[in-house]
Amino acid sequence: MICLINRTLSKVCHFTKGNRLELIPISSSLTRRCCTNFDKTLHESEDSPVKSERETAEQQIRYLKRELQRLKAANASLDQMAAVRADIDKVQEKLDSLPSAVDKADKGVLLKPAKGTRDYGPEQMAVRQKVLDDIIKVFKRYGAVTIDTPIFELKEVLTGKYGEDSKLIYDLADQGGEILSLRYDLTVPFARYLAMNKISNIKRYHIGKVYRRDNPAMTRGRYREFLQCDFDIAGQYDPMLAEMECVSIAYEVLTALSLGDFRIKINHRALLNGLFEACQIDSSKFRSICSAIDKLDKEPWETVRKEMTEEKGLADNEADEIGRYIQRNGRIELVDELLNDTFLLKSQAAKTGLEDIKLFLHYCSISGIDDKVSFDLSLARGLDYYTGLIYEVVLESRRKDESVGSVAAGGRYDSLVGMFDAKKRNVPCVGISLGVERLFSVIEAKNAKEKTRVRVVDTQVYVASAQKNLVEERMKICRELRTNQINAEQPLKKNPKLLQQLQYCEDQLVPYAVIVGEGELERGVVKIRNISTREECEVPRSDLVSELKKKLQIL
Amino acid sequence: MICLINRTLSKVCHFTKGNRLELIPISSSLTRRCCTNFDKTLHESEDSPVKSERETAEQQIRYLKRELQRLKAANASLDQMAAVRADIDKVQEKLDSLPSAVDKADKGVLLKPAKGTRDYGPEQMAVRQKVLDDIIKVFKRYGAVTIDTPIFELKEVLTGKYGEDSKLIYDLADQGGEILSLRYDLTVPFARYLAMNKISNIKRYHIGKVYRRDNPAMTRGRYREFLQCDFDIAGQYDPMLAEMECVSIAYEVLTALSLGDFRIKINHRALLNGLFEACQIDSSKFRSICSAIDKLDKEPWETVRKEMTEEKGLADNEADEIGRYIQRNGRIELVDELLNDTFLLKSQAAKTGLEDIKLFLHYCSISGIDDKVSFDLSLARGLDYYTGLIYEVVLESRRKDESVGSVAAGGRYDSLVGMFDAKKRNVPCVGISLGVERLFSVIEAKNAKEKTRVRVVDTQVYVASAQKNLVEERMKICRELRTNQINAEQPLKKNPKLLQQLQYCEDQLVPYAVIVGEGELERGVVKIRNISTREECEVPRSDLVSELKKKLQIL
Repeated sequence: MICLINRTLSKVCHFTKGNRLELIPISSSLTRRCCTNFDKTLHESEDSPVKSERETAEQQIRYLKRELQRLKAANASLDQMAAVRADIDKVQEKLDSLPSAVDKADKGVLLKPAKGTRDYGPEQMAVRQKVLDDIIKVFKRYGAVTIDTPIFELKEVLTGKYGEDSKLIYDLADQGGEILSLRYDLTVPFARYLAMNKISNIKRYHIGKVYRRDNPAMTRGRYREFLQCDFDIAGQYDPMLAEMECVSIAYEVLTALSLGDFRIKINHRALLNGLFEACQIDSSKFRSICSAIDKLDKEPWETVRKEMTEEKGLADNEADEIGRYIQRNGRIELVDELLNDTFLLKSQAAKTGLEDIKLFLHYCSISGIDDKVSFDLSLARGLDYYTGLIYEVVLESRRKDESVGSVAAGGRYDSLVGMFDAKKRNVPCVGISLGVERLFSVIEAKNAKEKTRVRVVDTQVYVASAQKNLVEERMKICRELRTNQINAEQPLKKNPKLLQQLQYCEDQLVPYAVIVGEGELERGVVKIRNISTREECEVPRSDLVSELKKKLQIL
Repeated sequence: MICLINRTLSKVCHFTKGNRLELIPISSSLTRRCCTNFDKTLHESEDSPVKSERETAEQQIRYLKRELQRLKAANASLDQMAAVRADIDKVQEKLDSLPSAVDKADKGVLLKPAKGTRDYGPEQMAVRQKVLDDIIKVFKRYGAVTIDTPIFELKEVLTGKYGEDSKLIYDLADQGGEILSLRYDLTVPFARYLAMNKISNIKRYHIGKVYRRDNPAMTRGRYREFLQCDFDIAGQYDPMLAEMECVSIAYEVLTALSLGDFRIKINHRALLNGLFEACQIDSSKFRSICSAIDKLDKEPWETVRKEMTEEKGLADNEADEIGRYIQRNGRIELVDELLNDTFLLKSQAAKTGLEDIKLFLHYCSISGIDDKVSFDLSLARGLDYYTGLIYEVVLESRRKDESVGSVAAGGRYDSLVGMFDAKKRNVPCVGISLGVERLFSVIEAKNAKEKTRVRVVDTQVYVASAQKNLVEERMKICRELRTNQINAEQPLKKNPKLLQQLQYCEDQLVPYAVIVGEGELERGVVKIRNISTREECEVPRSDLVSELKKKLQIL
C-alpha cells in the first residue's frame, strides 16, 4: 500500500493493493500532522505483512484521537475539537463499510474474523499469557481459587441486570430448546453460580471472554469479544477487610507489571447517596446524577453541571451544593474534615460511608499502600449494583496531557446474589475487575517502544545437523533431551541447511543449538553452540544431557 | 433426597426435596443391582450438598450404562441388552423434561446453566488446570507456540466443513449485521487463520471451548460446551517427521499423566482408499465404507459386514475381500507382508500408504516408542478431511471388558486450508487432538477411587490470631510475606476463633500457620505451626520471612 498526503486537498489519499485510489477528506490539522508523520507511517506500513484498508483506516483514527488529546491539552476551542470528532466519525463510517476490503476465497468465503473480534497470533499470546501468569500468581498469593462458567446463559439470567446496556447482549438463535445469550460479564454468572449452589463464602478469580454488541472501536482497544479478569470475595466479613484485599491485589498486580506510577481512587456509594439526601434531592434521581458525576474525569465541571440542571432536572443551588463536594479529593484529612461537616452529617448514610472510608484508609496505611490511595468524591462508577466502597485504579502518564485511564475498578455489591435467590437471601460480595485488555495494549506499546523482543517459543535446545542423512541421529538426541525435560526442537526436513537452522535459533532467541556432524559422531562427540555469543564447544555424546542441564541451570 | 428401591415394582422411587414422590419403571436386572448398591447410593446422595432430581436421574443412567457393559461382557442376548437400552432412553427422557426440577428464584429465573453445559467448581478447576499445565509443558517441549481465535465465526466459514454434523452448529441470532455461528472445533478456525494471514508454516497448540448442539449425554461426559486441546503442524516438510511429533506428543502426555498403559493405533487413508480401489469399488462409496469400518471397535465384523452389504450396497465378495484386510493388525511384519501382497499392490495409493507406514514405524523404533504403536487396518476415523496417516490413542483398561476408549486422535489433512484460499493454495497440515474432557474424567475417577485430596488453594502460610484485636498485626505480616512472594492468607474477620482458623488450614491442606499472640508479640516472637504434624515452634518476629522461606524451600 502506498500512502500519500495531499496538503491542499486536506485528504489522505491511498492506493490499496488492488490499485484503487481513495481519498478520505480530513481536517487540516490532521493533514499537517500526517505530513510530519509521513515517513513513520510508510515505515509502519512496510512492517506489517498484511496491511489492509481496514488497518489504514484504523491508523488514521489513531492519529485523529491523538490530535484530539493534544487539542484538549492545549485548551482548544470546542469548534476545533468538534471538527476532529467529525473526522473520526467519517473514517469510522468508512471503516464500518469495509467488509469486502479483505481477502475473499473463490467460493465467496469472507476471510475475516467476525466484526469486533480478532485472532491473537503467537507473539500477542506470549505477551498475554505472561501478563495473566503474573496476575494469577497475585490472586493465588491471596488464597483465591478459580471457577469457570459456560460462555452462554439462559437469557433470563441476564435480563434486568444491565439496564440500558441490555441491548448490547448477543442472543443465540432459537434453534428449538432454551433461549440463550452470550455472557455480558463474569459477575452475573458468578452471582447465579453462588445462588444456585447456595455458596455463602468463596474467594475466587475468573478469567474469561465476555461479549458485547457495542460499536467496536478497535483502535482504542475496544472489542466485541474481550477478556475479563475478575477477583471477588463473597461472604459475611468484617468491614473493609475484603475491600482491602481487592485493592491490595490491584496494587500488587500493577507493581509486578512495572507500568509506572498509578493512583487508586476511592469513594463510597453511601456517601454519594448521603450527599444527595443532604441536598434533599429525590431518591429517584440518584442514579442519573451518579452517571453525570461519572463524567467528571473527562469533562469539566461546567459541562457536568449543565447536564445536571438541564437534563437531570436539578435546581441551580442543588447542583452547586453537589459540586462543592464532588470536586474535592484528598486523603485522611479530607475524611476528618467531612466527618465534622454538619450539612453532610444530616444524612446517616453519609456518616456510614465516611466511617468506612476512614477505616479503609487506616488499613491502607498499616499495609503501607496509602501513598497510592486517594479519596475522590467525583468517583461514581457506572454500574447500578454497587452498594458500598467503590474504587478505580488509573495509570499515571508521564505526559500530563495523555491519560491511559482506568486499568482496574470495582466495589462492593451486596444485593446481586439475592436477585437469584427464591428467598432473597443475600450474599455480600466485593470485587475488582482488572482491565486486562488495556494492560495488554499498554505493555504491547511499551515493548514496541523499547524494541523488546518477545520470546515466543520456549525451545531451549535446537538440534541441528551439519551434513545430510543425520535425521535419525537428531531424532535420538531430541528424544533423549525431551525425556530429560529439556525443551528440544529439530527441523522437520531430512537434510536442512545449517545456516537456516542457526538463523531460526537467532530469530526465535533459542539459547543453545546442538550441532550433529559426521566427523564428531565418529569421534563420539557433539558440538554445543551458544546462539547469542556464537561460541561453540565439543562435549562427549554421553555427557550431552548433563552438559546442557548445567548450561541451562536445570537442577 | 431419600432413595428407595421397590423390588416388586421394578421401579426406582424417590422423594424429591419438595416431597414429591416419583416412580421410574426400570428393568428387573437394574432393580437387583440398585438394591446391591443401595447403601452406596444413599451415601453418595449425602455427599453432595445439592442433589437434584437431575442428578438422581443421571445416577440412574450411570447404573444402567454399567449394567449394559456387564451384559455385553457376559455375552448376554440382544433382547436383554435392548431392554436395558430402553430403560436408558426412558430415564433420559425424564431427564430431558426436567427444567423445572431445579431451583427457581421468585422472579421465575431458572437457576441452572444452559442445557448440556456446566459450571466448574474450584476442585474441578484445580484438577483441569494441573492436567492442562502438564500438557502445555509437553507442547512447549516440542517448540510449539499458541494462538487464539474468537469463539464465533462468520457462519459461511463453517459451512460445508462438517457434512451431516452441520446441523449441530449453534447459530447466533440475527441482530442486524453479520450472520455468526459458534465454532464447532478448533481446526476450521485454524485453517481460516492460516489462509487469511497467508501463513505457510507454524507449529501451534490451541486450547479452547467448542460448541455442539448434540444430544448431551452428560453422564458419559459428553457436553454441548467442551474443551478441545489441539496441536497441529502446518508446512511442507519431509515425510512422517511432523506425524512423528504429533504421535510423540500423545505418547509423552499420557506418560506424564500416568494413567496406565495405552496403545497407539495407526493406519493410512491412502491405504484404505487403495484397498477399496483394489477391490474395484466405486470411489463414491469410499467415505461411507470408511464410516462403516469405523464401527469395528464397537461392533463385531458380522454387524459391520451386514451394514456394508445391506446399507452401503457392496457385493458379498467385495465385503469379504475388505474384511480379509481390515480385521488385521500387527507391527512392521504386517507392513512387510502387505508390501508383497499382489492383490493390494494393484493400487499405487495402497503402496504409498504402506511405505509411509513403514517409514513411520521405523522412526518410532528409533525414538523408542514403538512398543506402544500398532498398525491397525480397522482404524478409519470419522472425519472426511484426512488425507494421509491417521492415528488414535486408546487407554488400556485393567479390566478387559471396560474400555475407556480414545483419548487422542488425529492425522494428516492436506486440503483444508485450500478451501479458504482464493487461489486454492494448500498448506499441508497434520495434527493431534487430545481428548482432554475424557482425560479429566479418568483422572477425577482415579482421584475419587484413590481418595486423593486435591489441593485447591495455593496458600503456603495462614496468618492466624490467638486472641482478639490482632487484625492489624496480621495485616502487617501478610503484607510482609506477600511482598516476599509467599502465598499468605488471613481470616477476614477481626476476631476469628483459633480453632476455626486451624480447621481451615487442615481442610485446605495449607502447610504452615503463623499464630500471632499478645504474649509472643511482647517477647518479639511469633509461632509457626506445621499443620500436618501439628508441631509448633517460636521464631523471632524479625526472622519470620527467612524461616518460612527455609521451611517452604523457597530459594
